[in-house]
Amino acid sequence: MDTNGKALTSAGRLLAGIDSPEQLKTLSLEELYRLAAEIRRVLIDTVAQNGGHLAPNLGVVELTLALHFVFQAPHDRIVWDVGHQCYTHKLITGRRDRFHTIRQYGGISGFPKREESRFDPFGAGHASTSISAALGMATAKALKGCANRVVAVIGDGSMTGGMAFEALNHAGDLGRNLIVVLNDNEMSISPNVGAFSSFLSRKLSSRTLVSLKKEVEGTLNAIPGLGPNLLQILRRSEDSIRVFFTPSMLFRALKFHYIGPINGHRLERLIETFETARSLTGPVLVHVGTQKGRGYEPAERDPSVFHGVGCFDVKTGKVRKDSGPPPSYTSVFGRSLVELAEKDPRIVAVTAAMRQGTGLDLFAERFPQRFFDVGIAEQHAVTFAAGLAAEGYRPVVAVYSTFLQRAYDQIVHDVCLQNLPVIFAIDRGGIVGEDGPTHHGVFDLSYLRHIPNMTVMAPRDENELRRMLKTAVEHGGPAAVRYPRGTGLGVDLATPVEALPVGKGEILREGDHVLLAAVGVAVHEAMKAAQTLEEDGIQAAVVNARFIKPLDRDLLLHWAKHCRGRVITVEENAVQGGFGSAVLEMFADAGWFPRSMVRLGIPDRFVPHGAQAVLRRELEIDAEAVRSAALRLCRGEHGIS
Amino acid sequence: MDTNGKALTSAGRLLAGIDSPEQLKTLSLEELYRLAAEIRRVLIDTVAQNGGHLAPNLGVVELTLALHFVFQAPHDRIVWDVGHQCYTHKLITGRRDRFHTIRQYGGISGFPKREESRFDPFGAGHASTSISAALGMATAKALKGCANRVVAVIGDGSMTGGMAFEALNHAGDLGRNLIVVLNDNEMSISPNVGAFSSFLSRKLSSRTLVSLKKEVEGTLNAIPGLGPNLLQILRRSEDSIRVFFTPSMLFRALKFHYIGPINGHRLERLIETFETARSLTGPVLVHVGTQKGRGYEPAERDPSVFHGVGCFDVKTGKVRKDSGPPPSYTSVFGRSLVELAEKDPRIVAVTAAMRQGTGLDLFAERFPQRFFDVGIAEQHAVTFAAGLAAEGYRPVVAVYSTFLQRAYDQIVHDVCLQNLPVIFAIDRGGIVGEDGPTHHGVFDLSYLRHIPNMTVMAPRDENELRRMLKTAVEHGGPAAVRYPRGTGLGVDLATPVEALPVGKGEILREGDHVLLAAVGVAVHEAMKAAQTLEEDGIQAAVVNARFIKPLDRDLLLHWAKHCRGRVITVEENAVQGGFGSAVLEMFADAGWFPRSMVRLGIPDRFVPHGAQAVLRRELEIDAEAVRSAALRLCRGEHGIS
Ligand SMILES: [Mg+2]
Ligand SMILES: [Mg+2]
Repeated sequence: MDTNGKALTSAGRLLAGIDSPEQLKTLSLEELYRLAAEIRRVLIDTVAQNGGHLAPNLGVVELTLALHFVFQAPHDRIVWDVGHQCYTHKLITGRRDRFHTIRQYGGISGFPKREESRFDPFGAGHASTSISAALGMATAKALKGCANRVVAVIGDGSMTGGMAFEALNHAGDLGRNLIVVLNDNEMSISPNVGAFSSFLSRKLSSRTLVSLKKEVEGTLNAIPGLGPNLLQILRRSEDSIRVFFTPSMLFRALKFHYIGPINGHRLERLIETFETARSLTGPVLVHVGTQKGRGYEPAERDPSVFHGVGCFDVKTGKVRKDSGPPPSYTSVFGRSLVELAEKDPRIVAVTAAMRQGTGLDLFAERFPQRFFDVGIAEQHAVTFAAGLAAEGYRPVVAVYSTFLQRAYDQIVHDVCLQNLPVIFAIDRGGIVGEDGPTHHGVFDLSYLRHIPNMTVMAPRDENELRRMLKTAVEHGGPAAVRYPRGTGLGVDLATPVEALPVGKGEILREGDHVLLAAVGVAVHEAMKAAQTLEEDGIQAAVVNARFIKPLDRDLLLHWAKHCRGRVITVEENAVQGGFGSAVLEMFADAGWFPRSMVRLGIPDRFVPHGAQAVLRRELEIDAEAVRSAALRLCRGEHGIS
Repeated sequence: MDTNGKALTSAGRLLAGIDSPEQLKTLSLEELYRLAAEIRRVLIDTVAQNGGHLAPNLGVVELTLALHFVFQAPHDRIVWDVGHQCYTHKLITGRRDRFHTIRQYGGISGFPKREESRFDPFGAGHASTSISAALGMATAKALKGCANRVVAVIGDGSMTGGMAFEALNHAGDLGRNLIVVLNDNEMSISPNVGAFSSFLSRKLSSRTLVSLKKEVEGTLNAIPGLGPNLLQILRRSEDSIRVFFTPSMLFRALKFHYIGPINGHRLERLIETFETARSLTGPVLVHVGTQKGRGYEPAERDPSVFHGVGCFDVKTGKVRKDSGPPPSYTSVFGRSLVELAEKDPRIVAVTAAMRQGTGLDLFAERFPQRFFDVGIAEQHAVTFAAGLAAEGYRPVVAVYSTFLQRAYDQIVHDVCLQNLPVIFAIDRGGIVGEDGPTHHGVFDLSYLRHIPNMTVMAPRDENELRRMLKTAVEHGGPAAVRYPRGTGLGVDLATPVEALPVGKGEILREGDHVLLAAVGVAVHEAMKAAQTLEEDGIQAAVVNARFIKPLDRDLLLHWAKHCRGRVITVEENAVQGGFGSAVLEMFADAGWFPRSMVRLGIPDRFVPHGAQAVLRRELEIDAEAVRSAALRLCRGEHGIS
């Protein structure tokens, strides 16, 4: 048990005996508290080694134990929203011995996953899906006449996603047995924004309070038999109004039973409350207050830093910088946008609860009036930006590729159809690594390329990112710049930043035998491959396409023909409908076909979690894979890929 | 003025004098009411002739007049949600003389459109976008220091879309001047579902009332100085609780000023209220009650029928059936699903507020327990279905192609990543006609094809639709069946319905000169073209691919080679990333290239509104276009397309 690496040596004796949640039920309250302490130790030690979501997991240790104490998983279903808070759940549902492999290639996932365990009835990674999924499951149970329970655990941040509201609305209407646990830590990733969150925490504005007071007074006044006595009391007491106006009102309005708020670190209270919830008929909302980072002082002090964190030193809480001198694409984006915005007052920035993650923190500090964090609400973010653009602004929506999927319709319907100059700064395009299949950004080139009026770019290094950003701002129509997770190449950042001609690529390396046409980080792999191919006597031409849409037809055609019709496209995107597909379409439309062509990219399957380099190797989209493909083509062995 | 066709002859004298909303402001109240009557006459006569959205427009005549009376458009911005209720707005903003062309090719749009008028500051077509867009505009105004107002007009149905909630949450937080007019007719397209709508209309369940009562009692009890007297009164009066609990609570919770509900057909009340709203600082919600179909008895009686309606007889209210004997794809789907569900208890059906539009009304009647209308909430619909599928059901999500765009992320993240057997019955795939660019379903093959685990089909006729539906149900993974708006070909419906082998197409017509590979309705056009090509001495082979994913590689390759490498693909989908693109990718992956290839489909621009046949001709995706392309290829004139 204790042979699985350093992290697990910290697992205590109680945890070592828990192979299934059934065994929790024999523990005393005192033992449960001890178990919680043991689990916290494992969480801290493991995340310190592997990186991961620490603060959210530390916040729900007692919550998770209480859930498993009261409910009968896997017979009862526990659905975790987002799912990055499922570590305790994994530790006590038969995955303790593999826990040290979390987020590593071939190891267990950092998110719930149906394939991994029958205790994970529904996977996640994106926010706000749990109530919908749980309601579907609860409905299925009801149709089958099963008595088992379905529980969704959702954070206050996820509640701002519109999908959660859609599901609450439907759940209230259906009236099925469904338990929603609102894990309220007054945080999403960074502190919450939005009126809803101040509502939950009862931090109502005094304006709201005053108007509510008036309304309650008016109402009471109209009830016969209530004297001016009552009104006087009410007038004196703002608190009385405040108390009237609890979150319960909202959830009851949506026809939920409401219980709470309760302290999410008191096991006895949690157990008692979940038992009550289990006994009720119809939808129930249990409002639980938790502390993000609970039990680890550095995480309590700075929960945002320890939300998703790399390796760190347990003793000091100091995060080990995994990025050396070359800055990350994210930080280059953040700094470049500030520079552009200094000169262009039309530039405003929008994020959906990812101020730090997208590098917009700098912008937010410098231009607080021009910065908008809309909460976890990508759909609204995009159409809000379209509204700004309609009034002459140049909004930059900074968002991770995978989360922009949420706003596909808004990109089509609100931005591109109206040809509005909204700029999409798409971070985490391509393989993201340890967060795995829910987080890889490998579809964006495909889902953006077919939308009319859209311009799609991907920089080959951080310098080109700056130029593309400027190009997008000057372009005057919808434009997307898509860049990867991680550090840049460390190239010099040229000043002044010059815009690129739209639809023009560049030839990086001339050659006669095979054309390597690439976009984004794949350009670097293509260049490396071209160098090694020299040893094989193969002269590869390398084109950096820069624009996935519009394509540089002339440049690509010229070099494809020059290279005797041998073409390899390289991209970190699905090969279906992506950059290579666009090149192929362009050839066909030009009435010309290559002799042989290989499209390297993400194959038609979901990519697991693991280190970026490991995955790139496994997927055959690195320099070595480009080289092999080139050798096959040039030696006439095509037909394999 | 009265020369523009029959409809406008009914325009009265007052309307004839309104060329801009500025002129409204000189009218007396009595004149405004007369104008409303004149407008209703034009609405009824025009929609009777052209088809369109009648009931929603009849409901907002006074609301629209009052808005334009109080606000200064286009200086002030009026943003219509969905936009199908903008007819009165169009009539009084300089488009009266073109109003008889509404929804016709080359005529004015049935929706707000930026290109059409400076009075349309933001276009629409899909639901729930208006608050986001208006908030963006209001924010822009504030940044610029402009004093003009932004008004969003949104229906109660659209409010159930999560995006509206996301926007309200952000608006309350920002505190900008923004006026949201909630047009509450207790209807979306058909009567509303969801807890929220009963909340708006105060139809609270008695369970909710009882629990609220308890809570209020408890709260009052805890306030020192309130005697048992008050509690007794409260106990006696359910109404007092009900009154406490108005929609105002929710909107105030979200930090909006709340005014209402007010009668939406009393002009004096509307004008006075909008003037108040205009004078307030911060976000304001005006709750207006209107009657859908107001002023036209058949529409008042049956607002669902007159929501979006074809031509009808004004006197009798009888809708002219534009469909002859061949049934529509929608109705074939509806009937076939019921037949399948009779034998397969795993089948359940999900719609997002389109029970009738998707043909599920039959299913809902036959299997009320297995039918789910989730409201205008496509994201939730898809993940709710995924939850059902995770528990062993075979949910069929029936949805229009254009609206499924809203759930792209849920299809990727909740359905396909988990390989859950959710079936997408995608109606209105391809050109929809008069509803125009916001409603054409021309991207689905492209946005679905690149998602791993997804199977994508399109039937060539109504018989094949039945078979594909059965195939999808038996398949056991995510599967989409995509079919067009309109009537089928009138073919015999074979019984028993037999499933198709997954990934197998069919050769419909052998030929040696050119391969016409098509999917969906385009197969019929390809067949017609093949017949006429005989006159030119060209023998065209026609393959019905049936599956866009997985493609029938062997069949397509065989016939492409057999036809001397001349290939034409035909589809009613974007040529970027669609079926033709898939065929091209498959060829390249097989290491084979055609001699010449033309992909017919929707070009890289948004398609305007107009009759389906007119648009198909204009887009060159009909039989004639297929024939021309074949002649070009066979006569070696390729290079044009
Ligand atoms: Mg939170
Ligand atoms: Mg309505």
